[in-house]
Amino acid sequence: MSSIYHGQLTVSIFGQSHAPAIGVTVDGLPAGEAIDLEELQAFLRRRAPGTGDWSTPRKEGDQPEFLSGLDQGHTCGAPLAAIIRNTNTRSKDYSNLRDIPRPGHADFTAQVKYGGFQDVAGGGHFSGRLTAPLCIAGGICKQILARQGIYVGAHIAAIGGIPDAPYDPVDLTQEALLAPGEKLFPVTDEAAGEAMQAAIAAAKADLDSLGGLIECGVIGLPAGLGDPMLDGMENRIARLVFAIPAVKGVEFGAGFAVANRRGSQNNDPFYMDGDRVKTRTNHAGGILGGITNGMPLVFRAAVKPTPSIAQPQDSVSLSRREDTKLEIHGRHDPCIVPRAVPCVEAAAAIAVYDALLEQRKRSV
Amino acid sequence: MSSIYHGQLTVSIFGQSHAPAIGVTVDGLPAGEAIDLEELQAFLRRRAPGTGDWSTPRKEGDQPEFLSGLDQGHTCGAPLAAIIRNTNTRSKDYSNLRDIPRPGHADFTAQVKYGGFQDVAGGGHFSGRLTAPLCIAGGICKQILARQGIYVGAHIAAIGGIPDAPYDPVDLTQEALLAPGEKLFPVTDEAAGEAMQAAIAAAKADLDSLGGLIECGVIGLPAGLGDPMLDGMENRIARLVFAIPAVKGVEFGAGFAVANRRGSQNNDPFYMDGDRVKTRTNHAGGILGGITNGMPLVFRAAVKPTPSIAQPQDSVSLSRREDTKLEIHGRHDPCIVPRAVPCVEAAAAIAVYDALLEQRKRSV
Amino acid sequence: MSSIYHGQLTVSIFGQSHAPAIGVTVDGLPAGEAIDLEELQAFLRRRAPGTGDWSTPRKEGDQPEFLSGLDQGHTCGAPLAAIIRNTNTRSKDYSNLRDIPRPGHADFTAQVKYGGFQDVAGGGHFSGRLTAPLCIAGGICKQILARQGIYVGAHIAAIGGIPDAPYDPVDLTQEALLAPGEKLFPVTDEAAGEAMQAAIAAAKADLDSLGGLIECGVIGLPAGLGDPMLDGMENRIARLVFAIPAVKGVEFGAGFAVANRRGSQNNDPFYMDGDRVKTRTNHAGGILGGITNGMPLVFRAAVKPTPSIAQPQDSVSLSRREDTKLEIHGRHDPCIVPRAVPCVEAAAAIAVYDALLEQRKRSV
Amino acid sequence: MSSIYHGQLTVSIFGQSHAPAIGVTVDGLPAGEAIDLEELQAFLRRRAPGTGDWSTPRKEGDQPEFLSGLDQGHTCGAPLAAIIRNTNTRSKDYSNLRDIPRPGHADFTAQVKYGGFQDVAGGGHFSGRLTAPLCIAGGICKQILARQGIYVGAHIAAIGGIPDAPYDPVDLTQEALLAPGEKLFPVTDEAAGEAMQAAIAAAKADLDSLGGLIECGVIGLPAGLGDPMLDGMENRIARLVFAIPAVKGVEFGAGFAVANRRGSQNNDPFYMDGDRVKTRTNHAGGILGGITNGMPLVFRAAVKPTPSIAQPQDSVSLSRREDTKLEIHGRHDPCIVPRAVPCVEAAAAIAVYDALLEQRKRSV
Repeated sequence: MSSIYHGQLTVSIFGQSHAPAIGVTVDGLPAGEAIDLEELQAFLRRRAPGTGDWSTPRKEGDQPEFLSGLDQGHTCGAPLAAIIRNTNTRSKDYSNLRDIPRPGHADFTAQVKYGGFQDVAGGGHFSGRLTAPLCIAGGICKQILARQGIYVGAHIAAIGGIPDAPYDPVDLTQEALLAPGEKLFPVTDEAAGEAMQAAIAAAKADLDSLGGLIECGVIGLPAGLGDPMLDGMENRIARLVFAIPAVKGVEFGAGFAVANRRGSQNNDPFYMDGDRVKTRTNHAGGILGGITNGMPLVFRAAVKPTPSIAQPQDSVSLSRREDTKLEIHGRHDPCIVPRAVPCVEAAAAIAVYDALLEQRKRSV
Repeated sequence: MSSIYHGQLTVSIFGQSHAPAIGVTVDGLPAGEAIDLEELQAFLRRRAPGTGDWSTPRKEGDQPEFLSGLDQGHTCGAPLAAIIRNTNTRSKDYSNLRDIPRPGHADFTAQVKYGGFQDVAGGGHFSGRLTAPLCIAGGICKQILARQGIYVGAHIAAIGGIPDAPYDPVDLTQEALLAPGEKLFPVTDEAAGEAMQAAIAAAKADLDSLGGLIECGVIGLPAGLGDPMLDGMENRIARLVFAIPAVKGVEFGAGFAVANRRGSQNNDPFYMDGDRVKTRTNHAGGILGGITNGMPLVFRAAVKPTPSIAQPQDSVSLSRREDTKLEIHGRHDPCIVPRAVPCVEAAAAIAVYDALLEQRKRSV
Repeated sequence: MSSIYHGQLTVSIFGQSHAPAIGVTVDGLPAGEAIDLEELQAFLRRRAPGTGDWSTPRKEGDQPEFLSGLDQGHTCGAPLAAIIRNTNTRSKDYSNLRDIPRPGHADFTAQVKYGGFQDVAGGGHFSGRLTAPLCIAGGICKQILARQGIYVGAHIAAIGGIPDAPYDPVDLTQEALLAPGEKLFPVTDEAAGEAMQAAIAAAKADLDSLGGLIECGVIGLPAGLGDPMLDGMENRIARLVFAIPAVKGVEFGAGFAVANRRGSQNNDPFYMDGDRVKTRTNHAGGILGGITNGMPLVFRAAVKPTPSIAQPQDSVSLSRREDTKLEIHGRHDPCIVPRAVPCVEAAAAIAVYDALLEQRKRSV
Repeated sequence: MSSIYHGQLTVSIFGQSHAPAIGVTVDGLPAGEAIDLEELQAFLRRRAPGTGDWSTPRKEGDQPEFLSGLDQGHTCGAPLAAIIRNTNTRSKDYSNLRDIPRPGHADFTAQVKYGGFQDVAGGGHFSGRLTAPLCIAGGICKQILARQGIYVGAHIAAIGGIPDAPYDPVDLTQEALLAPGEKLFPVTDEAAGEAMQAAIAAAKADLDSLGGLIECGVIGLPAGLGDPMLDGMENRIARLVFAIPAVKGVEFGAGFAVANRRGSQNNDPFYMDGDRVKTRTNHAGGILGGITNGMPLVFRAAVKPTPSIAQPQDSVSLSRREDTKLEIHGRHDPCIVPRAVPCVEAAAAIAVYDALLEQRKRSV
């Protein structure tokens, strides 16, 4: 396996940056689910390159074509397949990448893994562009979940050390959850967002790039989703979020902060809110034993700074087996965090919807 | 699915804390691999309850019985199955747990998920005891890997805010990697270890518990292991490490620190070390594009404080639908981090060996 | 993979004929299903060696021990594991089998596959004994299905060319379906059964063995179970039935007879029976496009004659690389068809229950 | 799951008869395998509608477009995706099929399964057209296998009761295996082939259709491929062959004939042929215990007569809940057996190559 999530849904991602197309198949969607293609397109646009200083000017239409799985606007039970054509590809010579790997990229590891047969153009299958089909699959799951009152949202939690206001993990409203996603630069706190954009511009001016944090929340979840040990919500989400190339860490609820806590600080006390069982705090991020407890599911992902920077870097010539210098031309996002926000939502939506389908089969 | 890792190896964990047994099956091991049962037993002892103040006095023999898959000390190609009998079980009434869920535990979520049919005794399938079969599977993988020059080790990176000396991510020697695991309290820096144990004793005296960090390293890895997107080393390891009940976060290489960095700081420059390609730093944790680059693979996991504490806690009565107080009796580890160290090694060993088998099939 | 069925249920079979135990894990059973252990035991007895001339006198208690997955007589949501101890094993030297493979057995192919590390004693993992854990899993599924009005039954359709009365594929009653299974020698037509037993006795007197046919039916099925292409009912059942070592062919409905037919003969006309859609004939065996149509699901499996016969046979010495003669000592079933009947039921029950769980997740 | 084969290779088939496209993704192909697109096209043409009386005149270009997975004519390690555009679709109204299901087709079962949301046009995902992507995947596997000296071939074994000369299961030469596939009407015995074509023409003149048998052979196989119980060669091949819509039975080696045999007749005696272990007969069809023994692998599949016939047939109106008559217009293959021959080869090639990859990972 490689680019396949195989649960109740089988999500299979294919394509290379400069192949004829990238795409995704989703097998296992129930029949009869309406798919709003305009809403999906709007979701994909959040991932597409923008006009801000923080984004590459490469034009990606990212207009998906649905090849199968839909009939009259609804899922028809057959596997769904959608592709996005790559345009203006192969316009330059990429053979250099086969010899001099870019630091922080998969050029070297793919070269070793595939014995030199890998598609190097634009990073091939390792390109960040492959998150577009992930967003197609995730965007569809998001729509279906929303119709059941389950909402998935995310925002930039920090860039260059500048934090956004975090989600309230206990009383996370639909409005607070989804508002950042409606902005071009998805933050809650506008002032923080402006400071982040300034930091990105400064890094760009230095021919450099910036990393950041993304926080994602899911509300409206019933308790009882997820499975013990290997298929808990943490396992599922982590597996999907690490599909986003630049992610290097994932934490749920209080996350790494639990390491410094005592049990009396970290345990979330239960109480009755009318007839519903709730917790007063939510350090667990809505997950106990891998299973949702009905509180907001909250997690964060760490995104590394774009490895493609214009500064000269140390690398090696694989053919000559000697050290060399590398300069990466072309323009790249000085910070991919804003565009990764919908990708994280997509990963979460797939994991949650898959767990919901799994749970449904258990109900007698 | 639930308690199954399904790759080249299928590792399937079963059992409940107070069922007749817990165990594991491992399908897909190549035939002809010698299994050193004494070495395995020694590995399992590292997870077993100890005699220190930081450990529960419950006696767990954790002596596995191999039911199948071995012949004359070698894997025979058939699925391997091993069990550990639970002894002295069901000695008390656990029905209380069905009514008043323990904060921080899976009692409530299991109750909802399984409609009240879950096995509540000792936490059932959600008990930390289920990491013993994980360690059987992982211990076997560790042995096989070691014969191929691939070593997996881990240590306590921090408890209660007290840090151990971190692994050197660039020049991680076998000695430095494995030394902590040979100690009763697995740290590199003895002084730090003593401070940690004092902190645990203090928490225990307060009827409280402590969380911590575990750092794991893998050396001797060839470049080229792991697969793009959903089956990269990060995806595989994260999925397995989150099988350990108390883990709330996983980060690779520089991990969450990448969020505050620039690309020029975070990229690891390549250079030739004789005929080998290496990187001068290792912020990537040995993984680029999900694939090993031949540098040490390094990651950390955040472990929450034991939720079972003797202080009175707020909870609810599920039958009476009202708030109530809960007191947990019995003795529990005031800090499970030391015992979780071999579990993290086991998770890593399974992920790495699985990726190695996957890669082997690709070589023409 | 090897001995794993991996669908909504994951059924994983382990053990060797002379290992400490054989067993099975079943992951994915909904919680709250009552398991009647006596009824299960009665089902397993149908597979156990009998007292008739057609059966080996080896005593197999086949008493399963449940290690996990049950609580107070119900499935508890955790993976179910059950084992059967092997007793009186390793009493003789089997090393001969490593050198001189038995014709019709897996001795040679296992030797090549596992490089000589296979467990040869009693056929190891390839022993017919491994169908006992299949029957544990299948017997559980049968019970659950029966509570939902879905019944699985089978009978000997032929032995040595002597046919039993076939099931009526259109009007198959519960009585007709299940009656053979209540007999020691599971046929519908007693006279045919006696003739078959006489034929077995005659073959045995000649130090020979006999093959046969098994017909299996499932009634009470809703229309709509099964999935297109790779997971249709035919795919699922065939995959599971071929897990029974001696099966060499599987056919559904009219099966191989369709090859000689015209469409006008083979199509099953639809008609309304009150409000239910039925077909007047059932050449399709209740399956159209891989999906149940609500008519009885009917299929047959061809079972080869026991390869272990007492006559001297031609074989080779693998060590000396030369032809040699082989005489198989010990006593074996001269015909395994009667004991394979519950195994076929078990395979069908797993396939059907798995498809039922799959369908359940699709219902909005 | 549904239209996915998930082993070492993940073959995922998508599309509906009148959707924009049909296609396939293949994940897990080793990098560096040359793909001869012309040879693949020639293979696909064998499945495409022909000019004979036995074939539908619908023009299917069946020209696959490769979207990903190839670079400079070789597999590049990334998932391979290929599609075939559907042309001239939706030209008529298919809503009738939602009301009056065609006997022998999946119209009714799909209607129930998908709650009326299925794509009915041209049979949707249940169309025989979906075997084209199966042939793309299988054709690629065939090429790779042939470079390793493993050849897959098939022929019409019988149509309308007229048999072709069977393959010699013991001394099956490459020439004899592949010769039928080079003919427009794939038989060994030309005279038999002419008689079959006459029978088809006669059936067609009667507005009727014919079923038949396909025999498939694989030579050059090493011993040791396949896995015990659920993933033996029989399980794998059966699962894939039943993906071809009209197949109702599969048998290996002597197949159903074993039911009438004694062990002394059916066992294949071993002998040494130089240094190679062979069997004098091959009733096992090259498979013992699910694992190849190095002899030719031989199996047969029963194909039902085309259910679409022009004669008036009895059906029901699902909306009016009453019996009605159905007349199917348009032109259909009066016998799909000739076109199904390459599909059976494709299914076998996928199963064999998958088992080869599985075995490769086991070799230390």
